[in-house]
Amino acid sequence: MRVYFDNAATTAMDDRVIEAMIPYMKEHYGNPSSVHSHGREVRTAIERARKKVAELLNASPSEIFFTSGGTEADNTAIVCGIDTHGIQHAITSPIEHHAVLHTLEHCAKKGKIKLSMVNVNEMGEIDQQHLESLLKENPNSLVSLMHANNEIGNINDLKAIGSLAKEYGAFFHSDTVQTMGHYTHDLKTLPVDSIVAGGHKFHGPKGSGFLYVKKDKKIHPFIFGGAQERNMRGGTENVIGIVGITKALELAYEDMHGHRTHIEALKKHFISSLKQQFPEVRFNGHSADMEKSLYTVLNVSLPHSEDNSGMLLFNLDLNGISASGGSACSSGATVGSHVLRTLKADPNRESVRFSFSRFNTIEDVDYTVEKLKELYGVTV
Amino acid sequence: MRVYFDNAATTAMDDRVIEAMIPYMKEHYGNPSSVHSHGREVRTAIERARKKVAELLNASPSEIFFTSGGTEADNTAIVCGIDTHGIQHAITSPIEHHAVLHTLEHCAKKGKIKLSMVNVNEMGEIDQQHLESLLKENPNSLVSLMHANNEIGNINDLKAIGSLAKEYGAFFHSDTVQTMGHYTHDLKTLPVDSIVAGGHKFHGPKGSGFLYVKKDKKIHPFIFGGAQERNMRGGTENVIGIVGITKALELAYEDMHGHRTHIEALKKHFISSLKQQFPEVRFNGHSADMEKSLYTVLNVSLPHSEDNSGMLLFNLDLNGISASGGSACSSGATVGSHVLRTLKADPNRESVRFSFSRFNTIEDVDYTVEKLKELYGVTV
Ligand SMILES: Cc1ncc(COP(=O)(O)O)c(C=O)c1O
Ligand SMILES: Cc1ncc(COP(=O)(O)O)c(C=O)c1O
Repeated sequence: MRVYFDNAATTAMDDRVIEAMIPYMKEHYGNPSSVHSHGREVRTAIERARKKVAELLNASPSEIFFTSGGTEADNTAIVCGIDTHGIQHAITSPIEHHAVLHTLEHCAKKGKIKLSMVNVNEMGEIDQQHLESLLKENPNSLVSLMHANNEIGNINDLKAIGSLAKEYGAFFHSDTVQTMGHYTHDLKTLPVDSIVAGGHKFHGPKGSGFLYVKKDKKIHPFIFGGAQERNMRGGTENVIGIVGITKALELAYEDMHGHRTHIEALKKHFISSLKQQFPEVRFNGHSADMEKSLYTVLNVSLPHSEDNSGMLLFNLDLNGISASGGSACSSGATVGSHVLRTLKADPNRESVRFSFSRFNTIEDVDYTVEKLKELYGVTV
Repeated sequence: MRVYFDNAATTAMDDRVIEAMIPYMKEHYGNPSSVHSHGREVRTAIERARKKVAELLNASPSEIFFTSGGTEADNTAIVCGIDTHGIQHAITSPIEHHAVLHTLEHCAKKGKIKLSMVNVNEMGEIDQQHLESLLKENPNSLVSLMHANNEIGNINDLKAIGSLAKEYGAFFHSDTVQTMGHYTHDLKTLPVDSIVAGGHKFHGPKGSGFLYVKKDKKIHPFIFGGAQERNMRGGTENVIGIVGITKALELAYEDMHGHRTHIEALKKHFISSLKQQFPEVRFNGHSADMEKSLYTVLNVSLPHSEDNSGMLLFNLDLNGISASGGSACSSGATVGSHVLRTLKADPNRESVRFSFSRFNTIEDVDYTVEKLKELYGVTV
């Protein structure tokens, strides 16, 4: 048996997404910037995609820009938000994804901004009072705080953070890579200036993404070149990526409730089975709180075990189970997680992130718990 | 009949490229940064691709970085070349692609560099004496001059330019988007510090590309995030793009001579048919010189005609022929070409870029000449 429990790192593509992409590999190959018929038929597909994404997020098509992924979109919002709006101070948290952290650190190193870190407690919660005091001290800041954490699953209250940012005139960017396609985003009411998506997190293609930037917070391009993306991103468009991420988002919205119900049942079953078999099990951050965390992520902390010390992921892999020890997509499991370090997670315990999709089953969970028991020598 | 003569804008994908990509859409979906089996099988594909590209170009795998296209690769080389090596002066030409021009202009606008333009004559030739005097006056420059021009097809002498740049200690970047996959590049002997590719120019996927940077001229990342591409480009890899561009380059190298012979015959036939039917025909730049221009590009200048004034591309399109009035991928045919303006091309004549691939036939050429005759009312 092979179990894929690393869906926060990336997901399998939906067959219907692949089907939507194939015609743009085979028949429709024109350059969308060309004005002849070969080009126009492709341009139409891109603008139809942009309209669809905007419609699903309750935004305007002119606020949606396709990118090569979540990382490029984060870089664009941060680097160009700072540059365009003359921002000299930024606020983020130590548990953001490296796409945000490393970008801001580079801006700070280049002397473009001063960077402040908002306090985060051992549950992974942002200290909102600290955030407010930082905003008060530093007018015209950029705030970059994620919607949900990719390792521990904690969901931040974007309404509260966004209102605070707005009150103090800050530019508010939120990395929504882990919630896009799994939760709805209503950009008419959400107090954010920019959010991002990576298609491969919700059964679309790797190397696809988009950036939303609010109309009245326009930024200049990150990648300079041709007039593509309404002059906001140079480069011949990744047409199959654009068609793919859009189809994936459409499918996600079509049955979000159904997917959520299915996955929540798996996660609940996983938590109760683990509690039953491993009385000493703990969960990192709010990961076991169904209200306060992603339904797609469960970050398990198991007791120290001689046989599995530093080897648990490897042992699971040997048993056909793919899971992750942090953020696979940012650091590889071997480097160790900056998120768990911030939470002061006990380094002697074994932390594993299991992350789910609608393609997982109850059998996947039962098989995994069974194997964990074997690896820990738990007798029934 | 439908004729596609806009291959310098983009090409149709080769079926064998699509076939190579499909398994990475269907079966192999892991994140290449994940250490489990789902991840490892994809990581292997990426590193195999890098090795293959390096081998074909006579480079080292550690010098090849996959990007989202030629434009991102140009931006990376220029922005990070300047930043990393403390460069304060850059030299380019007014007929470069916008991926180079707009990027350098932005750097100049931000006060990072002073930008000098090397003189270009009415044939599109670079004034090498002027280049040398600019290099002499400005030590530690970045030189960005393309291998071949995408509109008029002129091929620059990279050996001469590169040696000059080297002599004066400059960083030499060359935009090789139009020659990659159509000519060989031997990076052991070519005096360049960085070159780039866009997969869709040689029957690979749009949204794929790579950057070569010489070992001893290392630069920092353009997109910050995870540790992907050996810490040189954050973001989950566009796996199908990487597999696709590599397969396309492999196929290009496999029968480059055959493709070239086939396409050269088309171009020669096109030139002689036009000369026969339109005694007043001219060709922009060196485009009709088989030695000095791309075999894939022919930029035709036809006399003024009341019926076709500003409408020739449109009229060709109505007849099923897709061609371009400059650089489709950078400006759209409607904006007018900065290249033809630099060459002081007569604005009263009609300029059309026909660009070829190995999928074109002699019939395509004959049909097009026939239609041009009809449009111009040429009687036999
Ligand atoms: C000379 C040249 N440079 C750069 C580019 C940009 O490449 P891409 O479209 O892959 O971003 C193109 C084509 O669009 C080109 O012809
Ligand atoms: C929270 C978060 N932000 C950003 C990214 C980067 O997105 P991408 O891999 O599409 O570049 C990821 C995943 O890799 C993520 O989980």
